[in-house]
Amino acid sequence: MLLGPVLIRLNGTVAMRLFPTGSAHTAEELAEQTGDVGRHVILCGYGRVGQSLAHVLEGSGIACVGLDFDPNQVREARRAGNRVYYGDSGRREILLAAGIERARLVVVTFDDPPTALKILDHTRTLRPEMPVLVRARDEAHFEFLEQAGATEVVPETLEASLMLAAHAMLLLGEPASRVQHRIDQIRQERYRLLRDLAQADMPSGGLDR
Amino acid sequence: MLLGPVLIRLNGTVAMRLFPTGSAHTAEELAEQTGDVGRHVILCGYGRVGQSLAHVLEGSGIACVGLDFDPNQVREARRAGNRVYYGDSGRREILLAAGIERARLVVVTFDDPPTALKILDHTRTLRPEMPVLVRARDEAHFEFLEQAGATEVVPETLEASLMLAAHAMLLLGEPASRVQHRIDQIRQERYRLLRDLAQADMPSGGLDR
Repeated sequence: MLLGPVLIRLNGTVAMRLFPTGSAHTAEELAEQTGDVGRHVILCGYGRVGQSLAHVLEGSGIACVGLDFDPNQVREARRAGNRVYYGDSGRREILLAAGIERARLVVVTFDDPPTALKILDHTRTLRPEMPVLVRARDEAHFEFLEQAGATEVVPETLEASLMLAAHAMLLLGEPASRVQHRIDQIRQERYRLLRDLAQADMPSGGLDR
Repeated sequence: MLLGPVLIRLNGTVAMRLFPTGSAHTAEELAEQTGDVGRHVILCGYGRVGQSLAHVLEGSGIACVGLDFDPNQVREARRAGNRVYYGDSGRREILLAAGIERARLVVVTFDDPPTALKILDHTRTLRPEMPVLVRARDEAHFEFLEQAGATEVVPETLEASLMLAAHAMLLLGEPASRVQHRIDQIRQERYRLLRDLAQADMPSGGLDR
């Protein structure tokens, strides 16, 4: 039990040798440490996207619990005061220990379709109604992830191209309102949730699950 | 001269062996083929991001000329009716042949900082005032690219995390207007152009160069 915090201070190689499955925090330790959190978001992966996402969500008062199997990543993020634990989010017991039964949302922040599939599988069994957002490199695994139960798949190449397009149009003198409209339109075509919102012109809260 | 179209039909390996610098379209051929285009956007790289960007821009009536040194990519995109040529956009003569002297904007759509640097260098010499947008994986090369003259650097991990954050907040019941405001705020902190627009509350056209 006491090894967890020690290992976090060790480098990745040593920790991975001792814990080849990548779970220096045992499920029990993790469960103890997250016992006080509820109605939170579980962030699977705490790299750049996970960290940036946690920053935005916590800035809006939404509690997050991060999981990552890179001990260096975890150590640094914990030093910065983030609630992130060393564990493989592809494992059922780790998701349970991270409080999936009390959580409101799971986000897969890394681009790794096989692990995303495991997380979707466990979540669909443990919490069939809970939404799961999945980051992906591009559209290649979109159908596969959606069929596995992803609420939405966010392809980073699409998002990069939309932000480049917005900047390009603004630099070329298109009115900001027209640029916004065009980008919104493309996002609404691509993302179901945004489309539903636009159609319903829903001002608030109706999607809280 | 006649080899260009033939090579485009050959596979990449053969073409690269014959033209190790990656320019199956000679600069002369390219210049001939783009002679009728003006006030266009030069898209360096025509992978997923380049294609998606071209689609959005051309949908808004903005002419694009794409450059890519993957002959398969070029062949497929040309089949789909896109104006894209096989050439290394890191070379000065290829940028000239793509009409950089008549263009309005250059966008580096791949994540390859050394090549982006070459493009920035050539553009700063040939067209000191012309804006250049650069895609990047993350913030790691931001300063380096900005110092080299990038008008804006768009990091795809930031854009992915913002879209995940927007979806997460909407799914958790935050009002759409508040979500939009929060995401806009973060983008304005990060992107100079968006910040300027917000400060000036500029409705249109003022940035046309």
